[in-house]
Amino acid sequence: MPQSLQNLIPASRGIEPADMVYRNAEIFDAFSCTWEHNDLAVKSGIIVGIGRSYRGIRERDLCGAYVVPGLIDAHVHIESSLLVPHEYARLVASCGTTTVIADPHEIANVAGSEGIEYMLAERAGAPVDILYMLPSCVPATPLDIGGARLESGMLSGFVGRAGIIGLGEMMNMPGVLESDKEVMEKLSLTDMCDGHAPLLTGMDLNAYILAGPDSDHECITQNEAEEKLRRGMYIFVREGSTEKNIEALIPIITPYNVSRCSFSTDDCHADLLSREGHIDRCIRKAVRCGLEPECAIRMATLSAAERFRLSDRGALSPGRRADFCIVDNPRTFRVKETFFLGEPVSSYTSAPSAASLSASIRCTTPSPEQIRLSGEGPARVIGLVPGQILTESLTYDISPDTIPDIPRDLLKVVVCNRYGRGGVGTGIVHGFGFKTGAIAASVSHDAHNIVATGTSDKEILSAIDTIIRTGGGMAAVNGNEFTVLTLDCAGLMSSLPAHEVTAKLDALGKVTAEMGSIAQPFMYLSFIALTVIPALRVTDRGLFDGIAFRDVPVFYEKNR
Amino acid sequence: MPQSLQNLIPASRGIEPADMVYRNAEIFDAFSCTWEHNDLAVKSGIIVGIGRSYRGIRERDLCGAYVVPGLIDAHVHIESSLLVPHEYARLVASCGTTTVIADPHEIANVAGSEGIEYMLAERAGAPVDILYMLPSCVPATPLDIGGARLESGMLSGFVGRAGIIGLGEMMNMPGVLESDKEVMEKLSLTDMCDGHAPLLTGMDLNAYILAGPDSDHECITQNEAEEKLRRGMYIFVREGSTEKNIEALIPIITPYNVSRCSFSTDDCHADLLSREGHIDRCIRKAVRCGLEPECAIRMATLSAAERFRLSDRGALSPGRRADFCIVDNPRTFRVKETFFLGEPVSSYTSAPSAASLSASIRCTTPSPEQIRLSGEGPARVIGLVPGQILTESLTYDISPDTIPDIPRDLLKVVVCNRYGRGGVGTGIVHGFGFKTGAIAASVSHDAHNIVATGTSDKEILSAIDTIIRTGGGMAAVNGNEFTVLTLDCAGLMSSLPAHEVTAKLDALGKVTAEMGSIAQPFMYLSFIALTVIPALRVTDRGLFDGIAFRDVPVFYEKNR
Repeated sequence: MPQSLQNLIPASRGIEPADMVYRNAEIFDAFSCTWEHNDLAVKSGIIVGIGRSYRGIRERDLCGAYVVPGLIDAHVHIESSLLVPHEYARLVASCGTTTVIADPHEIANVAGSEGIEYMLAERAGAPVDILYMLPSCVPATPLDIGGARLESGMLSGFVGRAGIIGLGEMMNMPGVLESDKEVMEKLSLTDMCDGHAPLLTGMDLNAYILAGPDSDHECITQNEAEEKLRRGMYIFVREGSTEKNIEALIPIITPYNVSRCSFSTDDCHADLLSREGHIDRCIRKAVRCGLEPECAIRMATLSAAERFRLSDRGALSPGRRADFCIVDNPRTFRVKETFFLGEPVSSYTSAPSAASLSASIRCTTPSPEQIRLSGEGPARVIGLVPGQILTESLTYDISPDTIPDIPRDLLKVVVCNRYGRGGVGTGIVHGFGFKTGAIAASVSHDAHNIVATGTSDKEILSAIDTIIRTGGGMAAVNGNEFTVLTLDCAGLMSSLPAHEVTAKLDALGKVTAEMGSIAQPFMYLSFIALTVIPALRVTDRGLFDGIAFRDVPVFYEKNR
Repeated sequence: MPQSLQNLIPASRGIEPADMVYRNAEIFDAFSCTWEHNDLAVKSGIIVGIGRSYRGIRERDLCGAYVVPGLIDAHVHIESSLLVPHEYARLVASCGTTTVIADPHEIANVAGSEGIEYMLAERAGAPVDILYMLPSCVPATPLDIGGARLESGMLSGFVGRAGIIGLGEMMNMPGVLESDKEVMEKLSLTDMCDGHAPLLTGMDLNAYILAGPDSDHECITQNEAEEKLRRGMYIFVREGSTEKNIEALIPIITPYNVSRCSFSTDDCHADLLSREGHIDRCIRKAVRCGLEPECAIRMATLSAAERFRLSDRGALSPGRRADFCIVDNPRTFRVKETFFLGEPVSSYTSAPSAASLSASIRCTTPSPEQIRLSGEGPARVIGLVPGQILTESLTYDISPDTIPDIPRDLLKVVVCNRYGRGGVGTGIVHGFGFKTGAIAASVSHDAHNIVATGTSDKEILSAIDTIIRTGGGMAAVNGNEFTVLTLDCAGLMSSLPAHEVTAKLDALGKVTAEMGSIAQPFMYLSFIALTVIPALRVTDRGLFDGIAFRDVPVFYEKNR
């Protein structure tokens, strides 16, 4: 028992008054998935008791309102919101979230240990308890090196520090299966390790689980999720900006296995969070898909707390954190108020931490020669696939100087090393639909180099130049018109308030649509350099075959 | 991940053969409470996988037999079996048990740290993983001092040692509620503490839970168990030799809360274990009481493992211990074979540890004068209550030298300090029914002094003398006929095989019945000195009022 709790025993017994008593609440009992009409007493941010006899220094009649434990996101990359952690926390707290389990692997790819230190510093004063899993795979592959390499020796210094609770998603499945020494050392750092095992099945799934990772948020089919549950994995049902698995997976949830299932948002942009919510959105969608509200709420609370051995939260019972929210109704689940350690989150004026990051854009704008394509004939073209982050490898016959080929929707795509190592790679992409202008961004998984595409070399270079000058961000250039969301924090996150980031995202969406683009071009652009996903990618070295796992030229027969 | 698991990755992938593959098993999936027909592969005592493609150095066709994870007893005092741990383990292993969470507080009351060391040493080579919770209340009360006092400073030396997983049942409820310094220090030793809170409710229950203990095995009514569940306690449904709560509590178990409920046997004699079983008996009874077999099996396996954060057991999944048993049918649940770390428990020739305990009986037989009752008139008489360990405080008019009063069933009861401190207390008891002879024992909760009752001073002293001469045990004396179960280990446990202890218990039962006794006289005798239970007790100082909590004389007006 922490010493701080000992002082609360008299209040818990009703001998001393509580700070606050919430009367006439319909309290969710996460242990049995039932409701209890009762009063809730809080002191020093802790629930001291439930019962009718408590007296509080302050009291409030909830008139029968539904009170549920604070919601928990079991797996998220905060950087994907484009918000800095304290602003992210302010936003999701208003949605009922009081704990997030975050893997800071985007910023770790850019800034290494310094990035993790920044994320840790941002915990202070936030209206959400941000707990981190250490990024296990930085870089994602040996070919995908960004700004840092996190070896087990560097990670070990973080183990045991406040705010660090385990090892984040182990994406290096081959490394696990082949008992790679460095991977084994990372797995030995802690006994709490999240998995990442898309489509892994059978004996290799068994081996992966045996090696340690015992959760998965990558399931997309019922069969996959059921096999992983049976083999001992905790399942995080994911619903992000682009990865939406609730509808497919909800039918597998039963009262028996609900204690092993939680929700994850993984990657959610600020605009989605602002408009549709966070874990509350997951609960609403799960209920719409047929899950009992009590099952959905348990997933979002006690099940996640139990998975991470957080016995101080996840339920409304004596000695636990007074993290809870008031909702209109279990079924419609609109969050009306959130309380974090007993205080309304609306009272938090969350301020950025004093921590800062050194400049992460350390390159110059390429010359026109550096992005010239020389060659002709049959060429490899990256084909976007709507709604997916994977790409196709297409073949087009290309004549000199026919790119951009607007009628055939073939555009140049450029990756420019942001860390000052000078690499510039150029390829051809099909599917963006731009008729005019260009876009560029410094969000580009996982190395987060600068990536750009567009209808003219001039505008592509201008967009890249804009990113470099602003220190990172997302930019659209259409002739002389510039639309920019500056991501001043490592080129990944903005220190602006959520509503301003949302407004900028809306403006970028509007202008890119006017330029002829498909929806969400920055999302597709951000994954186009990710070498771990098939089939054809582009890096700062040029085209990359994600199946053969090697660099390839654009033209099948160069200079024939 | 433990290093030892890394070596199993190739076997888990099917690249190397497993040691053993069990084919065609109906495997219990504890995560979803369903069954799966499949093959189970084991190597080095660990489950390396489930699947049809495994090959084993040895293979065995189970022909569709039901395989469930090894059973777990969530709370037990091994000493109560009267068997030493290695023999206890051999016995319960044959019933499907592979893990017990034991609180060695009986031997700790007799032998302190030395007793705990002995129990720890007995873990080696046992076919059951014996995990200990440190005794939190030795002595049970300041008035109940036996052979030792375990302060938090002494307990702290055990924290973190192999085989120690937390703090045992915190019986000192007043000490918790009053924030007693020593109790608070004990609660601060670990974040895993079992509770013991019979009938505690409302705000005091809240305060007790807030202070740390978060399980309870003392519930006897549904209301009590439901309140404790709602307030965050894990519930261990108890079914011991005398405490039987399954029938009353099973109706509260639902698929939603089954993950928070387990089974406990608390105190079970060897004869009951031999004849009726252990946790398998609890499963059978729960099913007879209407629980779905899958719910009962989950309670006995994964739920207990999760409560104690033992992620290496409780289910049949890759990386977990190959602890499992084969049963005839989920509903009838007869255990046919048990496997501990992959080996059949029948192959274990469990040998006693080299550890030994110093002699714990350090007293001499009292003289007839020391057990003389002087006085007459209205006297306090301990009244046994059938089926309960509590007693009544009765009043009888007693004339000099009328004790024993066979017609009124009034017998002398004597407690003799076994630790050489010389105290001898004498009282009068109603309810044993003896017509001839006497019995004595060195099992006497919690101080474990020597306690005796009978129909003549001569036979009482003779029985006590027998206990002293044999170094502890249970004895019945009927004229010149002596029947003795020697408890050579601290006067609490026998190093004989279970079947011999059972035979001796049977003999004692037969002879005491012939002497006119009610059933189980040694059980009633063993609780008659326990001062924490109302209403009237006897200690080595004399009579004790368990309600007023003070020593009292036998005669209301002494020597009137």
